[in-house]
Amino acid sequence: MHFALISKILGLLLVVFSFTMMPPVAVAYLYRDGSEGPFLVSFSISMLLGLALWLPFFRQRAELQVRDGFLVVTLFWSVLGVIGALPMLISEAVPVGFTDAVFESVSGLTTTGATVLSGLDELPKSMLFYRQQLQWLGGMGVIVLAVAILPMLGIGGMQLYKAEIPGPMKESKLTPRIAETAKALWYVYLAITIACALAYWLAGMTLFDAICHSFSTVSTGGFSTHDASMAYWNSTPIDIIATAFMLIGGISFALHFAVWRGKTLLAYMRDPECRFFLGLMLLYMLMVGGGLLVFGIHEAPGEATRHAAFQVASFGTGTGLTSTNAAAWPGYIPLLLVFTSFIGGCAGSTAAGMKVVRAALVFRHSIRELRRLIYPNGVFALRFGKHVVNDRVLQAVWGFVGVYITLSVIFTLLFTMTGMDLTTAVSAVAASINNLGVGIGQVGGGFANITDEAKWMMTVLMLLGRLEIFTFLVLFTPLFWRQ
Amino acid sequence: MHFALISKILGLLLVVFSFTMMPPVAVAYLYRDGSEGPFLVSFSISMLLGLALWLPFFRQRAELQVRDGFLVVTLFWSVLGVIGALPMLISEAVPVGFTDAVFESVSGLTTTGATVLSGLDELPKSMLFYRQQLQWLGGMGVIVLAVAILPMLGIGGMQLYKAEIPGPMKESKLTPRIAETAKALWYVYLAITIACALAYWLAGMTLFDAICHSFSTVSTGGFSTHDASMAYWNSTPIDIIATAFMLIGGISFALHFAVWRGKTLLAYMRDPECRFFLGLMLLYMLMVGGGLLVFGIHEAPGEATRHAAFQVASFGTGTGLTSTNAAAWPGYIPLLLVFTSFIGGCAGSTAAGMKVVRAALVFRHSIRELRRLIYPNGVFALRFGKHVVNDRVLQAVWGFVGVYITLSVIFTLLFTMTGMDLTTAVSAVAASINNLGVGIGQVGGGFANITDEAKWMMTVLMLLGRLEIFTFLVLFTPLFWRQ
Ligand SMILES: [K+]
Ligand SMILES: [K+]
Repeated sequence: MHFALISKILGLLLVVFSFTMMPPVAVAYLYRDGSEGPFLVSFSISMLLGLALWLPFFRQRAELQVRDGFLVVTLFWSVLGVIGALPMLISEAVPVGFTDAVFESVSGLTTTGATVLSGLDELPKSMLFYRQQLQWLGGMGVIVLAVAILPMLGIGGMQLYKAEIPGPMKESKLTPRIAETAKALWYVYLAITIACALAYWLAGMTLFDAICHSFSTVSTGGFSTHDASMAYWNSTPIDIIATAFMLIGGISFALHFAVWRGKTLLAYMRDPECRFFLGLMLLYMLMVGGGLLVFGIHEAPGEATRHAAFQVASFGTGTGLTSTNAAAWPGYIPLLLVFTSFIGGCAGSTAAGMKVVRAALVFRHSIRELRRLIYPNGVFALRFGKHVVNDRVLQAVWGFVGVYITLSVIFTLLFTMTGMDLTTAVSAVAASINNLGVGIGQVGGGFANITDEAKWMMTVLMLLGRLEIFTFLVLFTPLFWRQ
Repeated sequence: MHFALISKILGLLLVVFSFTMMPPVAVAYLYRDGSEGPFLVSFSISMLLGLALWLPFFRQRAELQVRDGFLVVTLFWSVLGVIGALPMLISEAVPVGFTDAVFESVSGLTTTGATVLSGLDELPKSMLFYRQQLQWLGGMGVIVLAVAILPMLGIGGMQLYKAEIPGPMKESKLTPRIAETAKALWYVYLAITIACALAYWLAGMTLFDAICHSFSTVSTGGFSTHDASMAYWNSTPIDIIATAFMLIGGISFALHFAVWRGKTLLAYMRDPECRFFLGLMLLYMLMVGGGLLVFGIHEAPGEATRHAAFQVASFGTGTGLTSTNAAAWPGYIPLLLVFTSFIGGCAGSTAAGMKVVRAALVFRHSIRELRRLIYPNGVFALRFGKHVVNDRVLQAVWGFVGVYITLSVIFTLLFTMTGMDLTTAVSAVAASINNLGVGIGQVGGGFANITDEAKWMMTVLMLLGRLEIFTFLVLFTPLFWRQ
């Protein structure tokens, strides 16, 4: 392990992160909400800590190795999670202790969007902006993680995407490649966010709300500046825009990049994961929309379609914005929505969950097993698009899915030990490990009232989910720390 | 497909099955309960139907092929499920319609033990005996299925056990091998049942109850002759005997056979699946027993141990006998118990669920994936006891586990559509697909009050679970029926 190098990188990240305290300061001055103080203090702490970690090692020239990657990525999200909590912890306008502040900050950075706050509409504008910005930064971080880093770490079969990474290909040297990739993806992410903000603005939001909600839509984060979330506007055009951009956020940004470079929308239809994703979304929408009509929640098919599409896009991509009180829909519908978040969005998107590509591979593999029972000596290759998926990738996918489901079941039990009923416990697991953020049952109205133990468990699950489980888990094996 | 041969085999099975109506007739005469009529009628119907299927083809000399096996096995359990319902449907002492009668019969034959009846203590003795006998026959059937047939069909990785089947080894010819294996296992099953019945009798049960409960204990079936199940006696010795024989029923009967032949109990400890199974049971017992003490349900550690051990053995092996009202235990405990049934007992036992060997392989595989992340070029063989598990077996296991979990989730949603809450729906799925039989939540007191749709879904799930999913599922692929 190159600890000196890791310290240098982490320090550099903190220095860069400290500058993200500046836009909220600007917002504070602009709206004269008097809340610039906490951000300036947090800026200083983050900057000083970053310099302290960076300067002693700034001459370090060693190359980052694949194995160091696990530690850097985990430290990156956990340290920024704690540092990101500072403004809320310091500010007197936000009545939170350490547990709640870290919960909220990690929830932001992991694009989870679960909140312990209420009375959002009364918070200082700068604080609202800061929360939304955390999500946007987290979304950018996760795209780089998913597109540039995880394929090289080989997590959960993501080596499948090694060849598709934009930028130069140098297997053993992480740094230049990540930088190149990040730059390419940055433009795409920024362009889509601007388009989303413009659309919201034209549809009637204030410019402030339009920008804030574009941050939490494209990042599939789900924070809002209003307690009522998108239901605050109750506007069909706004719901349609949100639905579209949540779906866009759930598609691989490497694919968006390819579409932008190739100048043809057909690339979406040629991508097997994207096709599978859109097919799933359509299926869910039919099941939810049909249910709304059958149960008579919406009599007009148009309204049923609007809310079904919005909520399916929101749960299915793990965004967690709400257009209506879906937790109160009858019977199976809220549960179905919660379950959709376990599959989640595409690899390389801002969405979390197990990822569509893995679900698709698991599905095709099961079909193949059925075929093999009938023709025990037959040879059936597993194809995904133009790839033939090799056994090594498939085993990694299965390992990932197995650990994901096992952890979900174990934490469901642990949550029931904190006094939750089963629906609430399942909902809390989905909200955190799938970075979904929104709950049903006793947490339908937010996570302020769960126990501190439950909040910490959710915080860990948010990180686990965002770091694709294994990045985090591998640090707990003795083998990792052996020379 | 050799339809003529399949008809001959099925006919023969029905003829044999018709004779199982005779012991209840004897019981009816013995206790003068006046209920011999329904059994005699059922005997005639089963016999005539059997002869009608058998006689036209009794000169058939074709060999049964592996592929025919799927159809024979599925028909075997479904046809006997319907025919087995006749006595209850005909008898006026049992107030059930077609749905309930088939539910109860399939529940018996699949060793599920979920019941729609109440007032058991008032039923004719012959009918009580018949229900218990259904379970015992089902248990015998499933041992032969698991030990002799599934390894050859290659279901869910069970080809792992191909080499361990007692009896002569002739790959392509199913019939002589199944007969040899069945004979060996029959003696073991009978001996264990007699031991169990004697123990119950010595502990204070009437001879009738001792025999009846030995049938449903060793088969991990869970039917009882009393509404209160084993709590009827509230006897520590009886609870200990039941716990021991449920655990024995959860261990492979091929292993029992090996122990009997090798005359050393050490064979249990040398078997990797058995070790894993006993380790899991111990872990569950600590979690449940600890919970009972913490929540103050039992103040005496002895009582906590007794009930924790009993209920863990009952849920963990999917037996479903009850020593106390475990559904009313607080918090996480009933859920934990229900979840244990998804892993279930060992392959080759009478217990259902996904099987310990598969859980163990999934667990080891996940550990291996963690290792591979750290050493991407390392070669890590997956061992299970003396076997090196090849990739083909592992893929079959994963395919099985994936389909099992997916079906469980889908049916949980379907059950909530029939009006169940989530806890009840999860419980109904576990009770049926894991052949567990006992429920918590709204079905804590039995399954009489669920909708007919739910009863039919459970009936299908019982068969799916008992036939290891794929035996049944493969019949629904067009590929299976192609020439
Ligand atoms: K989210
Ligand atoms: K059972």
